[in-house]
Amino acid sequence: MGCSEEHAILSTRVLLSADMRGVDSHGVARLSGYVRLWESKRINATPNIRIVHQTPSTAVVDGDAGLGLVVAPFAMQVAIEKADKAGTGWVSVKNSNHYGIAGYHAMMALEHNMIGIAMTNASAIVAPTFSVERMLGTNPIAVAIPAHNEPPFVADFATTTASNGKLEILQRKNEEAPIGWAQDANGLSTTSANTLKEGGALLPLGGDREHGSHKGYALGSIVDIFSAILSGASYGPWVPPFPAYVPMAENMPGEGLGHFLGAMRVDAFRSLAEFEEHMDNWIRRFRLAKPVPGYEKVLIPGDTEREMEIIRSKHGIPLLDSVVAELNGVGEKMGVERLTREAE
Amino acid sequence: MGCSEEHAILSTRVLLSADMRGVDSHGVARLSGYVRLWESKRINATPNIRIVHQTPSTAVVDGDAGLGLVVAPFAMQVAIEKADKAGTGWVSVKNSNHYGIAGYHAMMALEHNMIGIAMTNASAIVAPTFSVERMLGTNPIAVAIPAHNEPPFVADFATTTASNGKLEILQRKNEEAPIGWAQDANGLSTTSANTLKEGGALLPLGGDREHGSHKGYALGSIVDIFSAILSGASYGPWVPPFPAYVPMAENMPGEGLGHFLGAMRVDAFRSLAEFEEHMDNWIRRFRLAKPVPGYEKVLIPGDTEREMEIIRSKHGIPLLDSVVAELNGVGEKMGVERLTREAE
Repeated sequence: MGCSEEHAILSTRVLLSADMRGVDSHGVARLSGYVRLWESKRINATPNIRIVHQTPSTAVVDGDAGLGLVVAPFAMQVAIEKADKAGTGWVSVKNSNHYGIAGYHAMMALEHNMIGIAMTNASAIVAPTFSVERMLGTNPIAVAIPAHNEPPFVADFATTTASNGKLEILQRKNEEAPIGWAQDANGLSTTSANTLKEGGALLPLGGDREHGSHKGYALGSIVDIFSAILSGASYGPWVPPFPAYVPMAENMPGEGLGHFLGAMRVDAFRSLAEFEEHMDNWIRRFRLAKPVPGYEKVLIPGDTEREMEIIRSKHGIPLLDSVVAELNGVGEKMGVERLTREAE
Repeated sequence: MGCSEEHAILSTRVLLSADMRGVDSHGVARLSGYVRLWESKRINATPNIRIVHQTPSTAVVDGDAGLGLVVAPFAMQVAIEKADKAGTGWVSVKNSNHYGIAGYHAMMALEHNMIGIAMTNASAIVAPTFSVERMLGTNPIAVAIPAHNEPPFVADFATTTASNGKLEILQRKNEEAPIGWAQDANGLSTTSANTLKEGGALLPLGGDREHGSHKGYALGSIVDIFSAILSGASYGPWVPPFPAYVPMAENMPGEGLGHFLGAMRVDAFRSLAEFEEHMDNWIRRFRLAKPVPGYEKVLIPGDTEREMEIIRSKHGIPLLDSVVAELNGVGEKMGVERLTREAE
């Protein structure tokens, strides 16, 4: 695509980290989508990513329509440098694109003994409470918190009941979705896994008003506002869609997608040793919580992904045939050798 | 109780703001509970609230066992002053008590053209996903964002499906709770509104794993860690209980309750005029979203509370007889005139 070697390696690393952690929907399966966005001139392969405004603890970054996979790490690096000097750093990003797995960016803070936070808006497939219309993306939040002997706390979740990726899995299996995941084109509860294609929408975390969907809606809105209204990106129903064939909204109120990255230096609050000792204690106490009969143990955010990382480090990343075919399609276009499937 | 005039007025203001906004569970109905905590020497009426550690954008505040109702506004003021100079301010608080309605503290930032954030941990009545044990409080998050012609965006919500206050309303009416709000002493789903008295627990936002309760659990955990592990307060199952008759946990790992307050100066990111213009546009667009048949319109976080504030400004705050009796009990003890109920 004409990316620099550095950007190509970084993008690969972000995509692979999703596959390694079991978040297949945000891994190499997305590569062909990024390439199509580049072909339709919505991604700039040689962006001039830069700070356009700043204070000691804040910055706005213009991604210059670059891959979010490289724009977000740039912005997180700015946040980390701000935190190094001012205690915390907060960067809102405009003019970016899909940034892959939120957890990758948040986890960049860990090796600096900082807490990392990453949010992004995304194209609108979620209906607010009482709305038929899709107004928000799945707008994920990731928070990574270091510990000492225990592994870090890493939460990384869409602000919806379920992600689109989960609906797609059900589609492939021809199964129904649980009540509370989605609504149909009239705003009524549905179990159709194809509801997005039929004009329906995903539901905010909580599902319906009685179960707190107004809270999920508020969370998704906060992500949208921090990511885009603070920076000057597009927001709400105007966020550029990921599929290159979907036309952009008219009269976009901002530039590209928005992200929000934060870093807090632990010892800007308390000595690192004390913090880590209590974080270890927190994690151990929660692991020891008495489990509900039938469940082995209480998990810490990040456990499932860490377990998957160990398995895939040993056995490799399983790819669907359709993903292999898509990657080979991209390879053919770009003059890269075909992937061959090894005997399993 | 021996509070300074200033602290007495501020506490009154925080409690009344909850009643005015319709959050009766956090208003004057709580006064007798605070008095009982003071009687049991768990609240210091003349605290020396002070900063014990700081950087340009962070501070840790020691509440000296004061009322959270005065400790949190002190800490929020520190956050606002930090934000004024460094762009943002983030304050973690230890050695505090229940701070009333989270939204009050977050909204302090609005008049400074800042975004305000407030979180607090609370005594453990919530079971993490797969846990029988209660490990977290309802750990609320409030975020207040200024607009220009439109009212501010004010989200203020517990990180559980439903608050304890909602269960108490059902108890008084002798009604059942919806599935997804609570579990029984064995960790099984229950509709008993009395489940907390029966050894059960509230459920994190999402309700069960299939509906994303691990996300609500992660959110409540983040609030706990930011509020208490950053500051040195107690956390998880060790958070001091609000009812004075409930004994404190043994071997508490920190001092008192913890809060986390944040302020972000809007023009540390973008000109205030531009931000407010787009915030107005965001709010208007969401209000115009096509509503689900049977619902009048899509609401913006804060609308319900604002509407209640208008009604109660005109007609006063309705108090339950039991609350009036409790207030008169406190008044008798303190030599304050009896409340008389006016004809309605």
